[in-house]
Amino acid sequence: MSETEKVIELAKRRGIFWPSYEIYGGIGGLYDIGPIGTRIKNKIVNLWRQIFVEDNNEFVVEIETPIITPEKVFKASGHIDRFTDPIVECNKCHKVYRADHLVEEFAHISAEGLNTTEITSLIRDKGIRCPSCGGDFGDVREFNLLFGTTIGPYSDSKGYLRPETAQGMFTSFKRVYDSSRQKLPLGIAQIGRVARNEISPRQGLLRMREFTIMEVEFFMDPEDKDVPLWKYGEDIIRVLTAELKQKKEEKPISYKVSELVSEKAVINPWMAYWMATANKFVKELGISENNIYFEEKLPHERAHYSSQTFDQMIVLGNDKIEISGHAYRGDYDLSNHAKSSGQDLTVFKKYSTPITVKKKSVIINKDKLNNEDKNLIKDFMKRISNLSPEQIETLIKMDEKINGKSLSEFVSVVEREEKESGKKFYPHVVEPSFGVERCLYISVANAYREKKDRIVLSLPPKIAPYEVAVFPLLERGELVERARKIYLMLKTGFDVMFDDSGSIGKRYARSDEIGVPFAITIDPQTLQDDTITIRDRDTWDQIRVKEGELINTLKELVINKKR
Amino acid sequence: MSETEKVIELAKRRGIFWPSYEIYGGIGGLYDIGPIGTRIKNKIVNLWRQIFVEDNNEFVVEIETPIITPEKVFKASGHIDRFTDPIVECNKCHKVYRADHLVEEFAHISAEGLNTTEITSLIRDKGIRCPSCGGDFGDVREFNLLFGTTIGPYSDSKGYLRPETAQGMFTSFKRVYDSSRQKLPLGIAQIGRVARNEISPRQGLLRMREFTIMEVEFFMDPEDKDVPLWKYGEDIIRVLTAELKQKKEEKPISYKVSELVSEKAVINPWMAYWMATANKFVKELGISENNIYFEEKLPHERAHYSSQTFDQMIVLGNDKIEISGHAYRGDYDLSNHAKSSGQDLTVFKKYSTPITVKKKSVIINKDKLNNEDKNLIKDFMKRISNLSPEQIETLIKMDEKINGKSLSEFVSVVEREEKESGKKFYPHVVEPSFGVERCLYISVANAYREKKDRIVLSLPPKIAPYEVAVFPLLERGELVERARKIYLMLKTGFDVMFDDSGSIGKRYARSDEIGVPFAITIDPQTLQDDTITIRDRDTWDQIRVKEGELINTLKELVINKKR
Repeated sequence: MSETEKVIELAKRRGIFWPSYEIYGGIGGLYDIGPIGTRIKNKIVNLWRQIFVEDNNEFVVEIETPIITPEKVFKASGHIDRFTDPIVECNKCHKVYRADHLVEEFAHISAEGLNTTEITSLIRDKGIRCPSCGGDFGDVREFNLLFGTTIGPYSDSKGYLRPETAQGMFTSFKRVYDSSRQKLPLGIAQIGRVARNEISPRQGLLRMREFTIMEVEFFMDPEDKDVPLWKYGEDIIRVLTAELKQKKEEKPISYKVSELVSEKAVINPWMAYWMATANKFVKELGISENNIYFEEKLPHERAHYSSQTFDQMIVLGNDKIEISGHAYRGDYDLSNHAKSSGQDLTVFKKYSTPITVKKKSVIINKDKLNNEDKNLIKDFMKRISNLSPEQIETLIKMDEKINGKSLSEFVSVVEREEKESGKKFYPHVVEPSFGVERCLYISVANAYREKKDRIVLSLPPKIAPYEVAVFPLLERGELVERARKIYLMLKTGFDVMFDDSGSIGKRYARSDEIGVPFAITIDPQTLQDDTITIRDRDTWDQIRVKEGELINTLKELVINKKR
Repeated sequence: MSETEKVIELAKRRGIFWPSYEIYGGIGGLYDIGPIGTRIKNKIVNLWRQIFVEDNNEFVVEIETPIITPEKVFKASGHIDRFTDPIVECNKCHKVYRADHLVEEFAHISAEGLNTTEITSLIRDKGIRCPSCGGDFGDVREFNLLFGTTIGPYSDSKGYLRPETAQGMFTSFKRVYDSSRQKLPLGIAQIGRVARNEISPRQGLLRMREFTIMEVEFFMDPEDKDVPLWKYGEDIIRVLTAELKQKKEEKPISYKVSELVSEKAVINPWMAYWMATANKFVKELGISENNIYFEEKLPHERAHYSSQTFDQMIVLGNDKIEISGHAYRGDYDLSNHAKSSGQDLTVFKKYSTPITVKKKSVIINKDKLNNEDKNLIKDFMKRISNLSPEQIETLIKMDEKINGKSLSEFVSVVEREEKESGKKFYPHVVEPSFGVERCLYISVANAYREKKDRIVLSLPPKIAPYEVAVFPLLERGELVERARKIYLMLKTGFDVMFDDSGSIGKRYARSDEIGVPFAITIDPQTLQDDTITIRDRDTWDQIRVKEGELINTLKELVINKKR
């Protein structure tokens, strides 16, 4: 079994995750998160909420918007036109494949950035045939990954399931802005389900048809210089820049957070802020910082709305897996929704002191003009009506004539000073975006260890399904009763499980496999001298402590355990 | 403005909830939950998880399953055939209406339980015409409320969005059972999005097209007598039984939890357990117990899978609003999925001591039979092959002949005693089910007060968006700095907000409107004598305490504040 298969086997057996609708043979890309998986997942979500929302609660708020989205929204966002994958159908058995994956797998050529005609030619030229029946392929076409549906009883009311939560933040931006502090920066976070109708979902949690996203749409003034990078002080961020990739380099460069800005690795300092935040979060999932780096996407690899994108990558054995994406969406979304909806989605930026601007304006000499004949008036108005003050000024300088008379007789341009207290503009958007199930999978796979033929899931206590397991050594009345008492006492301060069935060895094995960092055992000696055994999941070392010291000892152990 | 309109206005203005996609004119039945609403909602979800899952963690686990569901599942569950509402279309303007609502609104007759032909006749007889254009109506037909979609690239792979999370628990029941303690009772909880394609969604959060459900599918042995009703001791549950309703009574009867069982108001004691749990949860949302009762559904009002249903109702002003449903689903779902999938979904129940059962079995006298000719052997085998031992015994008694020879020459039936250690059976299911947005709406509407022309949201501290607001009295450097210090100190123990913009009066008004129970103010006197003002949201009373006593005083105030 490969490492991945081993993780998937454990996940199934211990209630972490498994394919949905198994009794009906399963559906590709849909997974259930089991009892243990849901505990870990909920902790990952809360950790993200703490680090991305609560720790930034001066400027980040959380909202919830629907999955079902009317067509107009995805027309404006570009998803109807561009959220597609190239597919190709076998002429014989009618099986459908991702065309780019076929080319990559059978011709070892990257098809990223190629259009359908180019991929069709490649398939023909390389003689790629249906891997399932050997038949030949039709033409490559674009397949839209949005799940479609109909809203209400009228068949023309089309809707789609969102493939990202982002559009909910863009369409409600004005309402959130107005109902909160009415200041930039304003981060709008959302944790919610999304769906993508993948052609070939992968086994496991990495390419799913339905999953949970945690993302922030961070609206800011692109000229904002007041970015609290100091929060991440000397933190190191490893980046494989687009420049390095073009040189075929594979080794990321280490930057201090502030250096990302000073060395222009990011196009806006807020990109650095959120990348540093993501770095912190991922380290708390138990990933060593040597196994985290950001890979900048080349222009043709980026989504249509992005002017700079980094994928945060995790090294897991021989694999490199994307755990988050960091896109600079600029004003793409807000300006498109403003255009499509006809609503003003700009914000007003007040200058610290009003500025004086010189403005030219046109003054028509009405008294003089009204003395002229109708034709001249008409021709005059026609000539100047669509011109700017600057253009009229040029015509005057060139001594333009209307019906033989100088334009300057009827019109002049003057320059005046005006005070402006601020300006309207579309905020720009930085978007850090995580897939929850990816975080779950990566955390579990990263924590997977084998020790003397047994499996240990070395999860950090913060995301372990329980912090402490309580076991009576034997299924004997007094021991069970005492263990229950201790369990109830610990429950007020820890996330505790109780298990009294099966041999103690089996119970240790089970709690190691689901990643419980500490197991405490109540044995006959406890009844005599009030001491309790604490066993460490990773070292299997045991210590005995007095019951009175149990809570403090456990607190210290939990805080000090790195993973 | 009605009370409802006032709540909706406040919700929009203060970021609690508002219609989704407002900039595109909105879509009926879809709502965004805003920054303040999401804080309240997350607390309601966590409170539910505490009371329904964590407090029952010996037998309840939480899982997560997909929204997108293949057609087979809803065929087996009965939703494809029966999850419908009657609709009728205007022949002139083609507007579509809920047929039963039309009859109720314009003829004041309840259409519950009537079929489409009967409603069609009623509409004709009562001369009901299109309220929008006055046109006449076509025939009433059933409209399925499942949102449909297509999974993957093949158009025949139909899927639907789940209208309840329940089917995810039924289809994964065996996997959850096997990966956890393999014992009944086993409650499987889920908190997740569902969608129902309502014809006429209501304004606000009460009948939405997409919402979040929190529910438990509680699998148990219907003979289980070991139900921990003692947990709810003397708690009173008010019930309007079906019997009372049939007598046109409107006043619920008060039962102690144990009396629900002894007086046979519920068909299984676990129904009483979960109704008592729901009662506790709803009281913690701030609802007075005098405004909570359970209404039993009449047989024709129940969903197709239920053999007893109670709606938990909340009295809000003149309205009665359903906050949760309690259905006894029996083995309807597991047995149907077993049939449709061909999988064994029973559990094995071990008897405490093996029981002896008498079993008849058939013994064929092979020696004798083999001496007969082939035709007789063939006829003999044909005659008995599909018969039970009992049926063969009857034939022998009636001296049945095969080709002129007695059947009893070749076959006999004997009775033997066998030991059985247990039996296989389908667990029965009790389902308590809450809509999260309904809980949010009801909590907010219930907390809505007006005091001297101002609005106060008297939420219990447990579900308030923040517990404490920190305000510097003036926007003056020293005060702001001191207030920030106190804010950071309080942040470790409380859910705190900081606000330093606008007049202190406006800030008090804002924090009252979003339901923050306590506001503390740092004023010039603080700088002199280290005292701080604590203001109560509901009484507007203020007390001054020393900074050193602030944390303990606040802790006490928060714990003691009922609402």
